[in-house]
Amino acid sequence: MIKTDILIIGAGPTGLFTVFEAGLLKLKCHIIDALPQPGGQCSEIYPKKPIYDIPAYPEILAGDLVDRLMEQIKPFEPGFTLGERAETLDKQEDGSFIVTTNLGTQHHAPVVVIAGGLGSFEPRKPQIPNLDIYETKGVEYMIKDPEVYRDKKVVIAGGGDSALDWSIFLADVASEVHLVHRRNEFRGALDSVEKARELAQVGKIKLHTKAEVKELHGADTLEAVVVKSTEEGVEPKYVETDYFIPLFGLSPKLGPIGSWGLEIEKNAIKVNNAKDYQTNIPGVFAIGDVNTYEGKLKLILSGFHEAAVMCQYAYQIINPDKRFVMKYTTVGGVEGFDGSKKEAKKEVVQSIV
Amino acid sequence: MIKTDILIIGAGPTGLFTVFEAGLLKLKCHIIDALPQPGGQCSEIYPKKPIYDIPAYPEILAGDLVDRLMEQIKPFEPGFTLGERAETLDKQEDGSFIVTTNLGTQHHAPVVVIAGGLGSFEPRKPQIPNLDIYETKGVEYMIKDPEVYRDKKVVIAGGGDSALDWSIFLADVASEVHLVHRRNEFRGALDSVEKARELAQVGKIKLHTKAEVKELHGADTLEAVVVKSTEEGVEPKYVETDYFIPLFGLSPKLGPIGSWGLEIEKNAIKVNNAKDYQTNIPGVFAIGDVNTYEGKLKLILSGFHEAAVMCQYAYQIINPDKRFVMKYTTVGGVEGFDGSKKEAKKEVVQSIV
Repeated sequence: MIKTDILIIGAGPTGLFTVFEAGLLKLKCHIIDALPQPGGQCSEIYPKKPIYDIPAYPEILAGDLVDRLMEQIKPFEPGFTLGERAETLDKQEDGSFIVTTNLGTQHHAPVVVIAGGLGSFEPRKPQIPNLDIYETKGVEYMIKDPEVYRDKKVVIAGGGDSALDWSIFLADVASEVHLVHRRNEFRGALDSVEKARELAQVGKIKLHTKAEVKELHGADTLEAVVVKSTEEGVEPKYVETDYFIPLFGLSPKLGPIGSWGLEIEKNAIKVNNAKDYQTNIPGVFAIGDVNTYEGKLKLILSGFHEAAVMCQYAYQIINPDKRFVMKYTTVGGVEGFDGSKKEAKKEVVQSIV
Repeated sequence: MIKTDILIIGAGPTGLFTVFEAGLLKLKCHIIDALPQPGGQCSEIYPKKPIYDIPAYPEILAGDLVDRLMEQIKPFEPGFTLGERAETLDKQEDGSFIVTTNLGTQHHAPVVVIAGGLGSFEPRKPQIPNLDIYETKGVEYMIKDPEVYRDKKVVIAGGGDSALDWSIFLADVASEVHLVHRRNEFRGALDSVEKARELAQVGKIKLHTKAEVKELHGADTLEAVVVKSTEEGVEPKYVETDYFIPLFGLSPKLGPIGSWGLEIEKNAIKVNNAKDYQTNIPGVFAIGDVNTYEGKLKLILSGFHEAAVMCQYAYQIINPDKRFVMKYTTVGGVEGFDGSKKEAKKEVVQSIV
């Protein structure tokens, strides 16, 4: 059982920044996220896209925003349960909560903060018979650790950035990389398309365009796929492989959180924005894009504000008898849980003569 | 008469960022500030101090924060009335407002946003007879344009960063710089103290420590000051000068805003945080440190959020018949009023084969 002060569901920018605001109040955090790495959409969907409305960043790439936030929260040593989806919320007699993931990992905390963005990102799955029976037996929808594929045969399907970028990356890792796409045209960053073209020319990526994976074969685990052309009169190809990875994008779903008894409005969680961004379940807060209230703006900067406010009230729940006097970081500095300390240079008091 | 869509009172980080959020909604802004440069406290009081709690900035100097914000809002071409204090607010029959400064500059806008921080910074004044009659006739409390002092004689009083830094700066501009301080010890950044020491040694700053300016003389404008030692038995010095600039710090005062009929609580302006950060006067908003509501945190990041929310409602006041569909900057880019356009690189759709 993982124990912490504030359990955060969602490792997007809002969830990450919560660790910082909690840390200033000496509260420890642990984050659960269904994606294999922190950053939420910013890392998974558009790491190389610029964002222009983060205050004091005229322009920042989404991936860089995540990196800066990770650096900022490092002194507060957050824990992470990644690649697992928060499945159930159980209120305990003492008012605390146990949150269990789809893989059974249990987390215990007095305060739960849902910073779930648009929800957990679920892969879009192709229509192939028996797809589900090969899941975790050769069929993967997400690449968590590329080393798994070292010296293995891999078939990737898809025509976007993920399919291109992972084909390029695995060309140097896997023993064989096939890239299957329904059309001739790929949609991605110019340099990704060009790099994939080079690798295809030298045979390091085997291209199958105007084609789809239509059958999966294998006794116990996946052993081969059948690739069929979308054009008539072309022979199907039987391709031996260890893995089939369809990368058809992720679609966000509120998912299991939707059945936790929270008040839901327009597919988002209703919170009290006049005060603390708490939900209808005391001790459970919702911040960032996952919440809703009158005039809600789904902006990253709003999630940051909501995190700061919410942490003050979490402090009161966790320390009902203490009073916290907020110090400005410019005055009080930042003391990490790792023993680090950052603070403004002290002024000197010196005679000039 | 200066006309604009949103008139912002206060050029601190919150006021500046308002220009950006308004600009995304195609609304133009004009900012009034009593200080001679934008940035509020961050520029005037602690430009060289690090701030640690700006999201995605593990550390940023207050002055750099202002610079980045100025860069971010540049495409939206804000107007500035600097070095003037907003004095009166007059509601017009059509619901719009005229705001007049202490120097009589008039501004007309349908929406007024008070982003006044702790209030307007008023100089602390020394106790010297006739001080007020020499104001604007040789006595200044703030340096707006250092060129005014070129080849003039200047007496600066004070023992902190401002007195040190301006003495250092004017040593190369003025024909003579005197620095008068009650004690031997100055309080400031180490490099400022050292630099002032060097300049004092070569006579470019004439130091008078353990001393105070006690008298002002001059027929019409200031012609000389009398510097008296705080120790007994030391002869007073008659120092000829064109200017006397006491830099004893600034103390924030809500000032004239306090009598505009706004609901005030704990020296701050009460706003509706459940919705739009509007005050009790429709069309007048208050954001950042100057406002108050249940759970208010006086954090720069909260001012940013309040600015974004408030601009949406300002849009409705200014364009009652239009509906604005918010686009993410990552998707829609940023179009400046200066004709500039920033946007994410388009994806290409290309065949690899």
